[in-house]
Amino acid sequence: MNAPTQIAHLVPELNLRAVPQALLDALKARFGANCSTALVVREQHGRDESSFQAPPPAAVVFAESTADVSDAVKLAAAHDVPVIPFGVGSSLEGHLLAVQGGISIDVSRMNKVLSINAEDLTVTVQPGVTRKQLNEEVKSTGLFFPIDPGADASIGGMSATRASGTNAVRYGTMRENVLGLEVVTASGEVIRTGTRAKKSSAGYDLTRLMVGSEGTLGVITEVTVRLYPLPEAISAAICSFPSIEAAVRTTIQVIQMGIPVARVELIDHNTVRMVNAYAKLNLREEPLLLMEFHGSPTGVKEQAETVQEIATDFGGNAFEWASTPEERTRLWTARHNAYFAGVQSRPGCRAISTDTCVPISRLADCLLDSIAEADASGIPYFLVGHVGDGNFHFGYLIDPNSVQERETAERLNHQLVARALSMEGTCTGEHGVGLHKMDFLITETGTGAVDMMRTIKRALDPKNIMNPGKIFAL
Amino acid sequence: MNAPTQIAHLVPELNLRAVPQALLDALKARFGANCSTALVVREQHGRDESSFQAPPPAAVVFAESTADVSDAVKLAAAHDVPVIPFGVGSSLEGHLLAVQGGISIDVSRMNKVLSINAEDLTVTVQPGVTRKQLNEEVKSTGLFFPIDPGADASIGGMSATRASGTNAVRYGTMRENVLGLEVVTASGEVIRTGTRAKKSSAGYDLTRLMVGSEGTLGVITEVTVRLYPLPEAISAAICSFPSIEAAVRTTIQVIQMGIPVARVELIDHNTVRMVNAYAKLNLREEPLLLMEFHGSPTGVKEQAETVQEIATDFGGNAFEWASTPEERTRLWTARHNAYFAGVQSRPGCRAISTDTCVPISRLADCLLDSIAEADASGIPYFLVGHVGDGNFHFGYLIDPNSVQERETAERLNHQLVARALSMEGTCTGEHGVGLHKMDFLITETGTGAVDMMRTIKRALDPKNIMNPGKIFAL
Repeated sequence: MNAPTQIAHLVPELNLRAVPQALLDALKARFGANCSTALVVREQHGRDESSFQAPPPAAVVFAESTADVSDAVKLAAAHDVPVIPFGVGSSLEGHLLAVQGGISIDVSRMNKVLSINAEDLTVTVQPGVTRKQLNEEVKSTGLFFPIDPGADASIGGMSATRASGTNAVRYGTMRENVLGLEVVTASGEVIRTGTRAKKSSAGYDLTRLMVGSEGTLGVITEVTVRLYPLPEAISAAICSFPSIEAAVRTTIQVIQMGIPVARVELIDHNTVRMVNAYAKLNLREEPLLLMEFHGSPTGVKEQAETVQEIATDFGGNAFEWASTPEERTRLWTARHNAYFAGVQSRPGCRAISTDTCVPISRLADCLLDSIAEADASGIPYFLVGHVGDGNFHFGYLIDPNSVQERETAERLNHQLVARALSMEGTCTGEHGVGLHKMDFLITETGTGAVDMMRTIKRALDPKNIMNPGKIFAL
Repeated sequence: MNAPTQIAHLVPELNLRAVPQALLDALKARFGANCSTALVVREQHGRDESSFQAPPPAAVVFAESTADVSDAVKLAAAHDVPVIPFGVGSSLEGHLLAVQGGISIDVSRMNKVLSINAEDLTVTVQPGVTRKQLNEEVKSTGLFFPIDPGADASIGGMSATRASGTNAVRYGTMRENVLGLEVVTASGEVIRTGTRAKKSSAGYDLTRLMVGSEGTLGVITEVTVRLYPLPEAISAAICSFPSIEAAVRTTIQVIQMGIPVARVELIDHNTVRMVNAYAKLNLREEPLLLMEFHGSPTGVKEQAETVQEIATDFGGNAFEWASTPEERTRLWTARHNAYFAGVQSRPGCRAISTDTCVPISRLADCLLDSIAEADASGIPYFLVGHVGDGNFHFGYLIDPNSVQERETAERLNHQLVARALSMEGTCTGEHGVGLHKMDFLITETGTGAVDMMRTIKRALDPKNIMNPGKIFAL
């Protein structure tokens, strides 16, 4: 989900560790102008798109190579000082905050596409390459990288949070699409995981252990991901429905029938109104599904017809088609701007975002009960969802100066997560745990599994210097 | 790949640990008749389909519940005695051998399908459920479980080795299809990983750490996997080619175009001859591709036509269609019997199987060079491949009494693995590391990554009792 800066209304538990001058001197000596202690630079690297606030890191190293990252980690390790990898800063969960002090390692200058293997449908990139840049650079090969979280996130950051977004229903998430990694470990050693082969049974799946580890096990310095042939045909459609339930039931049936829809996004009627106002559009102010179909011309036609039939059964109407690239861009821009539209709908407000994901059969119940609760609370909200995956986001639009509204939004989020977990779902479909969901994680997976995560963390990072204080308390 | 018992020609390094009588007494007291120390039972559990030989485990516990597994592990842990999980015994890599002594925990009686969630396309099973049983039990829902390694392996064993097989080109491997697990850890604790939601960013991906860990991190006691709607239409075809290269180039182009073929299997002309003799068939004795297409009737027709055009360009001929379920069963039975056909082609011989997997662009080079080497060696062989994934298996058919032939086969395998690794591939696409590929694993991923695996192993299993001596030496 795309999101600009939210209110800094939550202060995480701080446990600041000392950053000795000797380390700063050593970093300056090694990195020169690529190490900054300027307050403005540190502050920029000490926040993200979450609601959290903490003192900034003591220094920022702008890494230009794996060797830079390795040396920075080694120096930090020698002084027991935390390191926090930084891509473009689009985390929504406080991943980038220096809650235990330390230094930020900014990898945004490591932004080279290292090798495009078009014949194998793979590409290897440095972690600072953003998803839009990647798609630009591979365009001439007729391939594309489908994972689209909305924000123009870095591939390194997307790997670290196991990101996904609107195309995941067909193409999977970073979990399915990262083939291999280069990682700088807590001791500064450089390791490689995975190969470019499509499958492997060669030992522990370190690639997938690193994907979603949120910087707590190492710094990702190279990523090999899968690419896909650009579909021969693409069409997109908007369909409005008499109710959220009708839109969701349509989605559920589409998924259960195995129709390989590429995108199916829900926007509720309130959010349509906000989007219309923000982007000067005239979408019907009813719950909408935005869909996209990829395949051969015949295949796309067939998928679209089947979906249209299902939608009609549930009272859906007015399928509007967007077949040109321009129309499609307009459609998906509207979707990606839902967050901004929501925030702008209530001047001065801030958004608190949720990220639950449930098995598709429970999606209607989970959504409808949560909508009823949100409506009863009186807090305005926007609501969008990657509903084909059972994943949706409320954005509670609160007055940042109202303690009561903030508490109400947190209560709504707790109730929503509790509901999703009771339905065998997860507290986070794609944003990660970070600072905000550490308690939810324990409820979701149990102390046994979280203890296993802690044991792995302690073993691989005995000094607890890799982005400490995230995912779980140690 | 399907494979019956191979020759026990290799003896791994043994490091037998004592199994005290006190443990055997405690197991007898806890499990009664479900704990056996009979030699025949122990011997049956002390081997698998690999070429390795080792003394059998000291006892076999037939677990009937997670509590049984937990108690068995706790008792073993109390005496520092290894435990080796056993499903149906179809490992090809020595996973089941008690190379450090210990007890076998047979989970084949834990064979219940616990819950079918047809609407969510998920099913939760005990680890002893086999893939054929699973498909039988979900058939009435209109869904199926696609992973097909040939052998009727257990879902627990398939998870532990990250298995795949003929359908992986379209549906992925166990890596992509396991959503969640219940695992008994080295201390006997029961933990849960994952949820039934389709995606999640909730902490470390313990599910995928366990998938492929070959019993070295815990005993899998419950598995939730994805199911798929049975395709509306299925068709299968055989196409013969003037050369291996033509068949492989056809495959490469099919994959590069993104055609969602469900199966594409290569059988070389020698192996066709063996299969014909074994199964009394009349397949053209040329390199063959066996293919299967899944989708809507229109989609299947379209895929098949496109593939046929590509094949024709490469000199492929005589597309033979198998559209009825019976014809398709005959076709895939022929494929799955290739191993047996190979072994029977040389009376008294034994097969040494390989399992390399390379990026698809390198497949032709890797195969052709390896064929030339095998031909030059004079050792007869069969050759089959999941070529859509770049994965193939030579079976070198050696005289078990000839030291020279055995050494030649091992040399061919080493050369093949070295070639695959030089092409950014892997030593094992789907069989796992076990005992046979421990050195290859180090070459493939480097000492840094293997050291990380060791560190994780030591942290999660400090007594080194979980299937010790597999994947890497500690």
